[in-house]
Amino acid sequence: MAISPDSASRRGEALSLPKYADVCAAAERLAGRAVCTPLLESPWLNERIGGRLLVKAEPLQRTGSFKFRGAYNCISQLDPAARARGVVAYSSGNHAQAVAAAASLLGAPATIVMPRDAPAVKVAGTRREGAEIVEYDRATEDRAEIAERLARQKGATLVRPYEDDHVIAGQGTVGLEIAAECRVRLIAPDIVVVPAGGGGLMAGCALALSAELPDAALYTAEPEDYDDHARSFAAGSRQQVRDMSVATLCDALLPVQPGERTFAINASRVRGGITADDGAVLGAMAAAFRDLKLVIEPGGAAALAALLSGALETGDKTVIAVASGGNVDPDVFRMALEAGENV
Amino acid sequence: MAISPDSASRRGEALSLPKYADVCAAAERLAGRAVCTPLLESPWLNERIGGRLLVKAEPLQRTGSFKFRGAYNCISQLDPAARARGVVAYSSGNHAQAVAAAASLLGAPATIVMPRDAPAVKVAGTRREGAEIVEYDRATEDRAEIAERLARQKGATLVRPYEDDHVIAGQGTVGLEIAAECRVRLIAPDIVVVPAGGGGLMAGCALALSAELPDAALYTAEPEDYDDHARSFAAGSRQQVRDMSVATLCDALLPVQPGERTFAINASRVRGGITADDGAVLGAMAAAFRDLKLVIEPGGAAALAALLSGALETGDKTVIAVASGGNVDPDVFRMALEAGENV
Repeated sequence: MAISPDSASRRGEALSLPKYADVCAAAERLAGRAVCTPLLESPWLNERIGGRLLVKAEPLQRTGSFKFRGAYNCISQLDPAARARGVVAYSSGNHAQAVAAAASLLGAPATIVMPRDAPAVKVAGTRREGAEIVEYDRATEDRAEIAERLARQKGATLVRPYEDDHVIAGQGTVGLEIAAECRVRLIAPDIVVVPAGGGGLMAGCALALSAELPDAALYTAEPEDYDDHARSFAAGSRQQVRDMSVATLCDALLPVQPGERTFAINASRVRGGITADDGAVLGAMAAAFRDLKLVIEPGGAAALAALLSGALETGDKTVIAVASGGNVDPDVFRMALEAGENV
Repeated sequence: MAISPDSASRRGEALSLPKYADVCAAAERLAGRAVCTPLLESPWLNERIGGRLLVKAEPLQRTGSFKFRGAYNCISQLDPAARARGVVAYSSGNHAQAVAAAASLLGAPATIVMPRDAPAVKVAGTRREGAEIVEYDRATEDRAEIAERLARQKGATLVRPYEDDHVIAGQGTVGLEIAAECRVRLIAPDIVVVPAGGGGLMAGCALALSAELPDAALYTAEPEDYDDHARSFAAGSRQQVRDMSVATLCDALLPVQPGERTFAINASRVRGGITADDGAVLGAMAAAFRDLKLVIEPGGAAALAALLSGALETGDKTVIAVASGGNVDPDVFRMALEAGENV
């Protein structure tokens, strides 16, 4: 077990971080459990960016997002006694469903702390996995504190959404799969763009891709006003979101700042961060509906949205956009369909 | 070149039909051109049918439906002179887009005869592949006649939507892929259900699956009032749709009766036909949105709809439903989202 980041940094020690080999070990644990998702492509999207665009389709993953990978990799390593005491997680939705599903597969009871305003589809998805849901108020309560208290009370294990080595290693299997499919299809990607909330998916992918596709430039994608990764890369240190009260459709990408562990991995491996506004996100969802037949949720569409709206000069390059999840309420999806008709 | 079915049957001769080996040859031509689409699965859909349900995701195919397979297999076998003279096809949409895309890849000009009331997304999709579109009135004009006249005038090759050996063999690669993925994942399907309009996809899959998964029972799926395959299997001879004026959302499944060639293949290999009404189709599209994150068009959802509405007693069996396409107008998809909310 790695030491906790806060105590490490308080003592001025270097963080012990997960490595490429941990991602490979996660892939073995996930074999036959997680879906090996495809890279999708459309001539119309290629035409729009003027190069080649491939979309890693994590909405097709178990529980509808990449989060299952990290959750399963983490919980599957608990010993039988710890599994029996159960797991606790806090999440606006995708990590919640993922922990609930992985716990259910592994026979561990799960308690999930979710904000009262989480998308209905995500609350329902978590509940039907058999998890107990504890609601909190995003404005007045601290979800981490609630979850830590619950974990202490139950003797349960807290599965953090991104500040956990096993979770980061699990998410990294997205990167391994990208590299493997590129090898088989003789594709040499120049750029890989990954949506970032806490940065766990980017960190895992960075471990995998810096080893397997060292020539590819890596970028995070974030909502316009939640660009803490972009500003952190530019500043060279972790920066916070400036104004948490700004509305965004990207409920999956709301963390206030990059994780300490994820940033320690990403800072040296990621080229920078790009952003997309809500209009671009809805347009990207509509493009995925029309040209890929893939359902993507707002946060999951951040990389595609940033690329289609020209946030990065990609020329005739080969670009991979990770679509990280597809758990979207029908009302929001209708907004995307309407946005697509007005293009 | 096989003799034409009408002249063969007039002379009382047996039809010379495509075989399993033709499907395998088609797979070689399509390698690297068509997408090898995945079998998707959701624990919630499994729970709904009480067994195991896998969905073959042809909306993820190039041009958004399985039709690319047959069109490419056919056009790629034309010699350079015939390619230069071009191809003609008639179709309400999916075959149209497929022929246009395959022709474009292979350097052949394409002319497509489409009904004036075809879904806008399909007309736009065909036009952007660079095809010339000739519109006709479904109520008063005969599309086959128009297409045959155009082909004669241009010296072009008519690519029939299902009464063509190369087209049938190409569609059969769907069946080969199902069998291949089942082998890798150690899945032994008891039942495979395939949407049927003219029956070309079913015929191709029947050639592949009767060879590779001989224990699987095969069924067609059709809209409730367009059950010509179901009634033809029951009668042992080709039956027509009773009332072509009945409305259905399944624009892809409108042929009046099974093809002569497709029925000759299917009659001895397919167990029977099941149906779904428009409500079940919208419900299946909503289920695919929520539980698979896959966009399916009404006709493409017929197999899933029939299964989810209990048209077949499947018990705890392992069932594969082919989702044949995803080219759906946003307005119709909105209807499905609403239907899903009222479940």
